[in-house]
Amino acid sequence: MLVDGQLFRTVWIPKGEENIVRIIDQRGLPFRFESVDLRTVDEVAVAIRDMWVRGAGCIEATAGYGMWLAACEAAETADFSTAFNRLAEVLRRTRPTAVNLSWALDRQLEVASGALGVSDKVAAVHSVAEEIADEDVAACRSIGEHGLHLFRDISEIKGGSPVNVLTHCNAGWLAFVDHGSATAPIYRAHDAGIPLHVWVGETRPRNQGARLTAWELGKHGVPHTVITDNAGGHLMRTGQVDLVITGTDRTTYTGDVVNKIGTYLKAVAANDCNIPFYVALPSSTFDWSAQDGLAEIPIEERSGNEVSCIEGLCDGEEIMVHLLPQGSPVANPAFDVTPARLVTGLITERGICKANEESILELFPEKKLS
Amino acid sequence: MLVDGQLFRTVWIPKGEENIVRIIDQRGLPFRFESVDLRTVDEVAVAIRDMWVRGAGCIEATAGYGMWLAACEAAETADFSTAFNRLAEVLRRTRPTAVNLSWALDRQLEVASGALGVSDKVAAVHSVAEEIADEDVAACRSIGEHGLHLFRDISEIKGGSPVNVLTHCNAGWLAFVDHGSATAPIYRAHDAGIPLHVWVGETRPRNQGARLTAWELGKHGVPHTVITDNAGGHLMRTGQVDLVITGTDRTTYTGDVVNKIGTYLKAVAANDCNIPFYVALPSSTFDWSAQDGLAEIPIEERSGNEVSCIEGLCDGEEIMVHLLPQGSPVANPAFDVTPARLVTGLITERGICKANEESILELFPEKKLS
Repeated sequence: MLVDGQLFRTVWIPKGEENIVRIIDQRGLPFRFESVDLRTVDEVAVAIRDMWVRGAGCIEATAGYGMWLAACEAAETADFSTAFNRLAEVLRRTRPTAVNLSWALDRQLEVASGALGVSDKVAAVHSVAEEIADEDVAACRSIGEHGLHLFRDISEIKGGSPVNVLTHCNAGWLAFVDHGSATAPIYRAHDAGIPLHVWVGETRPRNQGARLTAWELGKHGVPHTVITDNAGGHLMRTGQVDLVITGTDRTTYTGDVVNKIGTYLKAVAANDCNIPFYVALPSSTFDWSAQDGLAEIPIEERSGNEVSCIEGLCDGEEIMVHLLPQGSPVANPAFDVTPARLVTGLITERGICKANEESILELFPEKKLS
Repeated sequence: MLVDGQLFRTVWIPKGEENIVRIIDQRGLPFRFESVDLRTVDEVAVAIRDMWVRGAGCIEATAGYGMWLAACEAAETADFSTAFNRLAEVLRRTRPTAVNLSWALDRQLEVASGALGVSDKVAAVHSVAEEIADEDVAACRSIGEHGLHLFRDISEIKGGSPVNVLTHCNAGWLAFVDHGSATAPIYRAHDAGIPLHVWVGETRPRNQGARLTAWELGKHGVPHTVITDNAGGHLMRTGQVDLVITGTDRTTYTGDVVNKIGTYLKAVAANDCNIPFYVALPSSTFDWSAQDGLAEIPIEERSGNEVSCIEGLCDGEEIMVHLLPQGSPVANPAFDVTPARLVTGLITERGICKANEESILELFPEKKLS
């Protein structure tokens, strides 16, 4: 998407430079917009592990490109396969629970083993790295196309006055390679000239809404307003929200949506206010084995420091401040599960379906259990 | 309530000292616990206006005591009544929308005009100042007694394992003179030996939950855990909340509850999870003229700085940090309206009633429109 008028992806191979993977370093956002060059697998591993990049699609693509650097490094050794496998494991250890990470690594291992000579292996891995990134972009673009209709319909009903959409956390292009999932229909509708406005929940504790979503919408020129997570319900009750779209970290094949903590509160309020609540996801985010989100998917409990401290800018410097009384304990569940019954629809790269097994499997018939 | 083992009110006349009103200075909490002596009406006005004290009951009592200082000052002038009236207006201008403030001032003006000599007037105002504070304490204590039964019942069902109660914002003793409204049943049950645990939502943007409620619960020794506002729904969905109790800034005689932004999200989630949602209030908080909370009660839009900045402790110093991308607009509605249909019951000083006109007027029959 656009940053100050220039098109960016979150990760790419810069043209005309040798053996470099360039990423947007997300640690500094929204205060510093900087890209970083990664020249070794170890550097890629640090970037993934320490969350210079984050988000399923962005991690997946960075891992794909990292495997190209791995192939280049392995080509310098006496035994390509041994070195290549070892470097894949270096990357795999960075975020052990990221499904997309392992998927990209395994795909590259297979590609390399299928090519004959070392230089063919390197070329094949390079080509698949670009493919992985391009596929992510294509899936998100497709989500945007399908979601565009929702905006068109509401805009028509509203006679062209801005469509107010509320989102939570960052399921934006920064979490993918481009477009994003929840933001894809927003960017698509905005670029198509449909007047719209985005309510961005700040998304405590890590404030990805305020830090990342607000930043990327602003840079692309999309009208938006940051609100506390508490304010979403009031805006719905008072007719200021036409539509909610969020992303998801994992969605069961029955339509239960695991997403950033607080999503459920927005879904249950949207339901109470008769406001459509959509979840946008590339199909790689479906969990084809989980039937009951609440019962089967463990919710990560993250460090209490994320709640008790917050980072911000003071006199141009990024500093961390402490928010709580001394000795007050903290709990920090990172995700919640929104039951399928509260989800109006799922926006996937193949189209929009209802959040139930039948409708999901109609879009993805190859996943039907035989 | 207790602070490090010593009993405190939020405002009082220290024994054996002349013409002093002492308050807990809430600006420094939770990082600094300090009391401040107010010696003139102007000092009281600053303390109320600049929110050294806040919360309906606490403002009301501070205004009552402030009028005693006003009487002392007026007694030094040639014309008591003129001076006393003028000083009342100084106090009235501090928080123009605080209903309880005006109520306390008018009560004191009437008391003074009913006494004959100047020294009698001063004595009467002094005595009523103590009465106003004591009445607030008595109302809150009574709310605690009535709410105690809820804890007893749940504790019995749970076989004595801790009752998990969730609250929002600060409707604690810091907002009143003692006990608080939402916290009164919590303190009462805790002091009665019923095992309980409080989930304290941080309550962005001003974080009164994290700063004040967590502090006062901790100081009184009540087990509690601070969470982001986003986490409440997940805790409800996963059986970790037995009961929700909040306060209210204004409640219609039909049971619609105006309270700190985010309350509605908790109420709608509690309803979805079949968890009782109670609102605790002294009857002075009822609006006997408002029938429809959403349609009739205007919601204050506060400064966006409350969302874009936050205060915390860094190296022992309280500093403000900025949280947002440059140029991202902010909205900050301060309250929301929870419809009566989502409220299980209202805990008042006269007992618990349902959130509907009939049940409320059964407890307060003198308010019945003739």
